[in-house]
Amino acid sequence: MKTTLTILGCGSALPTRKNFPTAQILEIRDKQFLIDCGEGTQIRMRQMGVKTNRLGHIFISHLHGDHCFGLIGLISSFGMLNRTAELHIHAQVDLEKILTPLLQYFCKELPFNVIFHTINPRKQELIYEDRSLQVFSIPLKHRVPCCGFLFEEKPRERHILREMIDFYHIPTWRIPKIKQGEDFTTEEGEIIPNLQLTTASDLPKRFAYCSDTAYSSKIIPIIKGVDCLYHESTFMDGEMIRSNQTEHSTARQAAEIAKKANVKKLIIGHYSARYNNQNELLNEAKEVFENTVLGEDMTVYEI
Amino acid sequence: MKTTLTILGCGSALPTRKNFPTAQILEIRDKQFLIDCGEGTQIRMRQMGVKTNRLGHIFISHLHGDHCFGLIGLISSFGMLNRTAELHIHAQVDLEKILTPLLQYFCKELPFNVIFHTINPRKQELIYEDRSLQVFSIPLKHRVPCCGFLFEEKPRERHILREMIDFYHIPTWRIPKIKQGEDFTTEEGEIIPNLQLTTASDLPKRFAYCSDTAYSSKIIPIIKGVDCLYHESTFMDGEMIRSNQTEHSTARQAAEIAKKANVKKLIIGHYSARYNNQNELLNEAKEVFENTVLGEDMTVYEI
Repeated sequence: MKTTLTILGCGSALPTRKNFPTAQILEIRDKQFLIDCGEGTQIRMRQMGVKTNRLGHIFISHLHGDHCFGLIGLISSFGMLNRTAELHIHAQVDLEKILTPLLQYFCKELPFNVIFHTINPRKQELIYEDRSLQVFSIPLKHRVPCCGFLFEEKPRERHILREMIDFYHIPTWRIPKIKQGEDFTTEEGEIIPNLQLTTASDLPKRFAYCSDTAYSSKIIPIIKGVDCLYHESTFMDGEMIRSNQTEHSTARQAAEIAKKANVKKLIIGHYSARYNNQNELLNEAKEVFENTVLGEDMTVYEI
Repeated sequence: MKTTLTILGCGSALPTRKNFPTAQILEIRDKQFLIDCGEGTQIRMRQMGVKTNRLGHIFISHLHGDHCFGLIGLISSFGMLNRTAELHIHAQVDLEKILTPLLQYFCKELPFNVIFHTINPRKQELIYEDRSLQVFSIPLKHRVPCCGFLFEEKPRERHILREMIDFYHIPTWRIPKIKQGEDFTTEEGEIIPNLQLTTASDLPKRFAYCSDTAYSSKIIPIIKGVDCLYHESTFMDGEMIRSNQTEHSTARQAAEIAKKANVKKLIIGHYSARYNNQNELLNEAKEVFENTVLGEDMTVYEI
């Protein structure tokens, strides 16, 4: 059960030959989460053959078109494909106001419910939880209210040592508790420490998505040590004036955040259409943070 | 000055690996007309390197998402690219109601005006005219009100025979009238017939766009003899029940319309996502009308 990030689009406002607007799918604990949904998201899914039967929740960072214009088409197509599972959309309050009339006009008699959950982009708070995962909002610094998302796995269960279970004749019904760390007491009253029965679980994965944002040191403590950080890098340092005006980051700034937050891996994206050679952005980031990866459309990254 | 049709997308409701939803650009008399604007239209334009500086008018056949979800992204990007020329949208009245709130939210301070023109899809009428061209609506038969479009060039001017103009010392100011067919009278009173001074102009081109529609014999007299007919062929004959239910055409039906209307060339499109091999649709059409061409995304057809 790998944790993967599938980048559907990592362009910025204007699409290019290579890059669609922003959308990505995080697959974690056998569930899919769509993060942002720019125009063409459903097209990229088709092009990549992505199945969406485990997709129940969509998170929208902010209400600029390149992060949400694909929603109506995606939902409309889900309807035509006879989806029945509820679809949850986590976004700022305005999205529901904007999308509802469109759904009423274009998606009459949808065979599933669309449920809106309001995010307050100015607060870092828990916005989603299930038994294996929590999602927190990350307030970002952009021209309009905007937040990123921190996905945190809950601790996984410890791995059973099958031969020790057999050796002590431990009944099946005790196993769930042992996976959670309990010791086992035999009929003779002997206590078998959990460490003899199990090995450590995999470390919980943490993924942070930060787009769109100017350089913001406030996010550093929130994303500290994540396994993977996706951070926008719309510009290079040479476009610092434009970068400041539009409240976007440069590749170097993204890398500085990654370095200061001591993350394990940085994926950059949200490139301005002006850069034909995106390796220049990668190189700028790598000067500051070596383990930087160039985000590319239609690519799957292991986390 | 060639007349061309650029197909940006010729899929139907569900996009596929090959086909985006419907959008095409007619280039005629040095102007561009966008016909329908499914999701991803602006992306296809970028992928093909289409320049849109001569695009002033968009025609929307009907208000199903696969024919109009790309409008908001396209207009938004035009704004970012600092377009200043007016953009005219010809569509049913509801489109303005739907699009206006989106423009107000996402496209504040657009540097150009978007001007809506209402089409009555139930009437065949002149909906656009300039000095070289007329566009008529073509009422179609679909689940929702829908119309196609007939583009008709006005007669072109006759070609001047330069050596005859020189021979008779005809002053420049007389030439526009001569191009329109007038004779020339010399100072001695001799009448030089226009046929000695000019050759015939190229025949005016006519292009008809018919999508989405069930088989409708009513359109035959309207599109009679056009140089090129784009007619939807969502299904093959084997899916006649589904075709009737959804009020779409089969490839054979598209070809029957082409044959009965005695058109010069038929381009088919709007294929259901179920057909992996679209040549089967082409072959079905060709059995009835030989000069059928398979519409394909990102392809330019000369008319």
